[in-house]
Amino acid sequence: MILVIRPDATLEQIDHVIETVRELGFTPHVSRGESRTIVGVIGDEAKPQVENFSAIPGVEQVHRILKPFKLASREFHKPDSAVYVGKVKIGAGSLAMIAGPCAVENYEVMDTVAKYVKAGGANILRGGAFKPRTSPYAFQGMGEDGLKILKDVGQKYDMPVVTEVMDPRQVDLVCRYTDMLQIGARNMQNFDLLKECGKANKPVLLKRGMSATVKDLLMSAEYILAEGNKDVVLVERGVRSFEDSTRNMLDMSAVPNVKGQSHLPIIVDPSHATGRPDLIPAMCRASVAAGADGVHVEVHNCPEKAMSDGPQALLPHQFLDLMGDLRRLATAMGCEFWAPPEK
Amino acid sequence: MILVIRPDATLEQIDHVIETVRELGFTPHVSRGESRTIVGVIGDEAKPQVENFSAIPGVEQVHRILKPFKLASREFHKPDSAVYVGKVKIGAGSLAMIAGPCAVENYEVMDTVAKYVKAGGANILRGGAFKPRTSPYAFQGMGEDGLKILKDVGQKYDMPVVTEVMDPRQVDLVCRYTDMLQIGARNMQNFDLLKECGKANKPVLLKRGMSATVKDLLMSAEYILAEGNKDVVLVERGVRSFEDSTRNMLDMSAVPNVKGQSHLPIIVDPSHATGRPDLIPAMCRASVAAGADGVHVEVHNCPEKAMSDGPQALLPHQFLDLMGDLRRLATAMGCEFWAPPEK
Amino acid sequence: MILVIRPDATLEQIDHVIETVRELGFTPHVSRGESRTIVGVIGDEAKPQVENFSAIPGVEQVHRILKPFKLASREFHKPDSAVYVGKVKIGAGSLAMIAGPCAVENYEVMDTVAKYVKAGGANILRGGAFKPRTSPYAFQGMGEDGLKILKDVGQKYDMPVVTEVMDPRQVDLVCRYTDMLQIGARNMQNFDLLKECGKANKPVLLKRGMSATVKDLLMSAEYILAEGNKDVVLVERGVRSFEDSTRNMLDMSAVPNVKGQSHLPIIVDPSHATGRPDLIPAMCRASVAAGADGVHVEVHNCPEKAMSDGPQALLPHQFLDLMGDLRRLATAMGCEFWAPPEK
Amino acid sequence: MILVIRPDATLEQIDHVIETVRELGFTPHVSRGESRTIVGVIGDEAKPQVENFSAIPGVEQVHRILKPFKLASREFHKPDSAVYVGKVKIGAGSLAMIAGPCAVENYEVMDTVAKYVKAGGANILRGGAFKPRTSPYAFQGMGEDGLKILKDVGQKYDMPVVTEVMDPRQVDLVCRYTDMLQIGARNMQNFDLLKECGKANKPVLLKRGMSATVKDLLMSAEYILAEGNKDVVLVERGVRSFEDSTRNMLDMSAVPNVKGQSHLPIIVDPSHATGRPDLIPAMCRASVAAGADGVHVEVHNCPEKAMSDGPQALLPHQFLDLMGDLRRLATAMGCEFWAPPEK
Repeated sequence: MILVIRPDATLEQIDHVIETVRELGFTPHVSRGESRTIVGVIGDEAKPQVENFSAIPGVEQVHRILKPFKLASREFHKPDSAVYVGKVKIGAGSLAMIAGPCAVENYEVMDTVAKYVKAGGANILRGGAFKPRTSPYAFQGMGEDGLKILKDVGQKYDMPVVTEVMDPRQVDLVCRYTDMLQIGARNMQNFDLLKECGKANKPVLLKRGMSATVKDLLMSAEYILAEGNKDVVLVERGVRSFEDSTRNMLDMSAVPNVKGQSHLPIIVDPSHATGRPDLIPAMCRASVAAGADGVHVEVHNCPEKAMSDGPQALLPHQFLDLMGDLRRLATAMGCEFWAPPEK
Repeated sequence: MILVIRPDATLEQIDHVIETVRELGFTPHVSRGESRTIVGVIGDEAKPQVENFSAIPGVEQVHRILKPFKLASREFHKPDSAVYVGKVKIGAGSLAMIAGPCAVENYEVMDTVAKYVKAGGANILRGGAFKPRTSPYAFQGMGEDGLKILKDVGQKYDMPVVTEVMDPRQVDLVCRYTDMLQIGARNMQNFDLLKECGKANKPVLLKRGMSATVKDLLMSAEYILAEGNKDVVLVERGVRSFEDSTRNMLDMSAVPNVKGQSHLPIIVDPSHATGRPDLIPAMCRASVAAGADGVHVEVHNCPEKAMSDGPQALLPHQFLDLMGDLRRLATAMGCEFWAPPEK
Repeated sequence: MILVIRPDATLEQIDHVIETVRELGFTPHVSRGESRTIVGVIGDEAKPQVENFSAIPGVEQVHRILKPFKLASREFHKPDSAVYVGKVKIGAGSLAMIAGPCAVENYEVMDTVAKYVKAGGANILRGGAFKPRTSPYAFQGMGEDGLKILKDVGQKYDMPVVTEVMDPRQVDLVCRYTDMLQIGARNMQNFDLLKECGKANKPVLLKRGMSATVKDLLMSAEYILAEGNKDVVLVERGVRSFEDSTRNMLDMSAVPNVKGQSHLPIIVDPSHATGRPDLIPAMCRASVAAGADGVHVEVHNCPEKAMSDGPQALLPHQFLDLMGDLRRLATAMGCEFWAPPEK
Repeated sequence: MILVIRPDATLEQIDHVIETVRELGFTPHVSRGESRTIVGVIGDEAKPQVENFSAIPGVEQVHRILKPFKLASREFHKPDSAVYVGKVKIGAGSLAMIAGPCAVENYEVMDTVAKYVKAGGANILRGGAFKPRTSPYAFQGMGEDGLKILKDVGQKYDMPVVTEVMDPRQVDLVCRYTDMLQIGARNMQNFDLLKECGKANKPVLLKRGMSATVKDLLMSAEYILAEGNKDVVLVERGVRSFEDSTRNMLDMSAVPNVKGQSHLPIIVDPSHATGRPDLIPAMCRASVAAGADGVHVEVHNCPEKAMSDGPQALLPHQFLDLMGDLRRLATAMGCEFWAPPEK
């Protein structure tokens, strides 16, 4: 950490800065430039006190030079991590295709959609039982009944399932029915929920918040890892921007950006990122080419009757076409979508 | 609601649109323009199904024309609402000054800061016992011990107290010690927490999320109101932007924007919005002049030793100076900071 | 266009709205819903007067339903357009690889970089002679001397060249030396420059502004097309966002988004979008997979000595590796980088 | 400037970094921390070469510690600068009220609006003769005929006038008719235009670009100052954001933010910032309370017939009411709107 001293700081102030650095257990290293004095602060930047350096009178700027996350960092774990969801491997060359309807609505829809996505090559089934809705008057999900349906259909088609958990009080219940816990964008900094999922023994699918930087996303992953759960898969799903023709702005560069800093797998969710079925196939293709460890897509056999987010779902035949393209690109990239061993 | 039909839609598709509108209990009203056919949808836009209109084949655009919130709306309740926190009235011409340290650290600091802010004219005391921190390694708050200190100091200085609640499981506990529940920016769309606070019989201070629109903020207020709790005070505290010299971007126009659409009081928190003590006084003054129902400011007697967000706190003497300016501006605006009746 | 009337509008106001619509040459079409009256406005939305409808007393909302651009629209010209730069075809399955240093610095660097990028398969050479720099104290470009070097080197390697034009007064001069005019992000809404380039008989490379929506970009293209120049290639080069680890945020979805609305080719510039060489290859790959008509990359043989934007340039060997990947992906996508016919 | 070395940098790389720093005329100052080596670079950060430090192999991060602008900085000129437009003083306690229609449309409208705003206390008259319009099909302004009308009406009411200049070729013409040159938001980084206005002997009203940081704005002012023109007034007019209920997001904190770093006056334009007449009065009041040196407001006697931006104009009587409020707040702030000396 580096402290830049104000040009009008008094000698007493500078002495007080140096003394404070020492008091907090760091070693100060002073150097005087033409127009500014600089104090290098040698020691562990993760100490909680460092955030207050900028409040010491006479300090003009504070520059951190170390990353604030550890367990999530590439420096902590050099090779790419793979996360297993049931038998499905995500990361290190093995791609996930997580597909299904936005919400679990009833057995029939779930069954129909699962049949189609399984046939297309999806390897993990999704469906929401607890739905975070902007309006209190919108469909809030089927709750435990939805979890049961999701589990049953997943077993029927031999696919592990993932579903969102919104409340720390739901974690135990959801763990009983699902193979992976999803933390939604709105809860990326719901720290109590992160901690609770960090204590669960299920892998976690952590979505980037709508105004979260890549660093914020990795810090939220760190919350889960710090509780002992090593199985975190990150999801880029778009952030808020001024562009008003898409629901969010998909930050595709987050894929290589995360991979440079972290060993954790990262997948892309173009359904929520764009909100537009006409853009989803191109963004899935781009994700694979960018090096993502998988894709997350909503599929519905009758979007106009869906109980949640129908307009952003692909139709089953669109999904099948898409998978053909994605397999071709995966091959060109030297990786492949995970598939069960042929018998 | 208005549906714009694609120029290449078939007659069958248009018939299907009209039929679907009827099926869902709405009345369709068709008009043909030079280049587009339009279907007016007459009925209650709050019905959950309306979101799927854009998924009906042949529909190009959907324009909502009604607001998605009701209880929070100015149309539902024409006059300005006032919310009481203990004896303190917020709204309808009576201004709140919520001040205190970011976190409750110990009795001494809380007592010292409370003495100063009370003397300056603050009417509600704040201090966090549960702290939402980006890093799992940062100080997470004193928990119940902090709540006790906050309550004791509030009673000593005859000030109601407000503190953040982060987890639905904490609501009961926090209610025992505090006069107002704060929901932080990161939890603005933590819907289970909103519902739980909506069931509590304490007023709620709801902060705008970092990527929330004004409409999103009002929808989150609607969650609380819909559970029966009428006492919601909104807080503008800045949103994420590309400007990198301030912590967030204070959206000052949210004050009149909210007031035009909603009867709820709204205050401004320049401490979190700017993160810079040098900008806080000017932004407090602007808030009062913009018509806000109060201000929320962090104050600390020794920011460099604060356990959380020290660098954004005002010093006690800065707070005193500020209050002088704010009182003068409040008078010019025809309103005043709530103060206990003189004995 | 649809006008939504305020619920408290008087009958006189509604009559005045209808009369005004007629006066301006449109046909009004009134329908009354449960809570709002709506006036459909039938006629040409491109008439300048329409922007004032929202200023008529009693009007609450105005919803446009037609696109504000014409010549750039897919409806105006259904098939993909191809643009020729010298012999190089951009669009309709033929991909551009525009490469070179940020600025023309001297003959030697230009020659060295051109040799490498030509060998790698670049088909258009770039280099700036007039540089838009944030600081007045930074290198502003070599001007006409740079144009001469660029032209000479382009001829030596049989590559058409593109360079930026910043000032309407420079258009004639730049046209004498270059095969394509580039309009930079900062000038995307420099309307006099757009008009001047619209009168030139050279193709135009139009970069998206840092806060431009996709619609804004297409409107700026419309300015050029409206002057008679049909050869416009759009460039996605990132927009401003809160993410602070990349220079801008690459909006990859702009590629299919533009292609859905417009017949014009669009390429991607990951150098300016990310500002980070470690992210450029992945973003080039993603661009090809997303369906872009080409890529724009800065290459320098000694980035640390570059006179402009060195830190975002690829090294020659990185460029060679990248082209191998891109050719493989292009094949998987059923398109190819334009290359001169083998002799 | 501070260079942070990569943890895996070789000794040769570190030596090369140090050598390069020396070669460029700076003094290196090396210090080794627990996990990173740091090289302080002592010398003038404004040298163009510094931007390339991050391209030297082995360099992980570059932290600038000095501001990149000089003439615009508070360090260069400690007291607040005042700028004179005709007799009107802007800055140092004297407030501007710049008012008028968006565009000059004809003599009658200009005369009517000028009469009203003069009566209300406006001290500078505005009106556009060259209009930057998103659409090539929208009204582009009256050109020189508009300039003549503006000048005539300004003289009739004894008000200096300001109008926008969009093209470097127009500067001489515009200077003949106007007392102040306005550079619009879209041209804030039209560097050739900045230079041309820097050579003119008229004060310049420089609007913040829609995606410009405060630093970017000050760098653009620096372009004008560096050409010898000392009379620059900055304008905060809102930036692009995800909030879709206002045209832009007014960054009110830019006022004290600029004042802390620069001696130049800054005013606020809530008309363009919000695009909503219902929000303009509150934002004008907030601007005065925030310490702005004035306000810029569009006024039109018949917004529904305005040829440009009618929907964002105040009506004359709204303007009169507003000025009453603003004078009261200015008094509370210890400053006043400039007014001609009473005879």
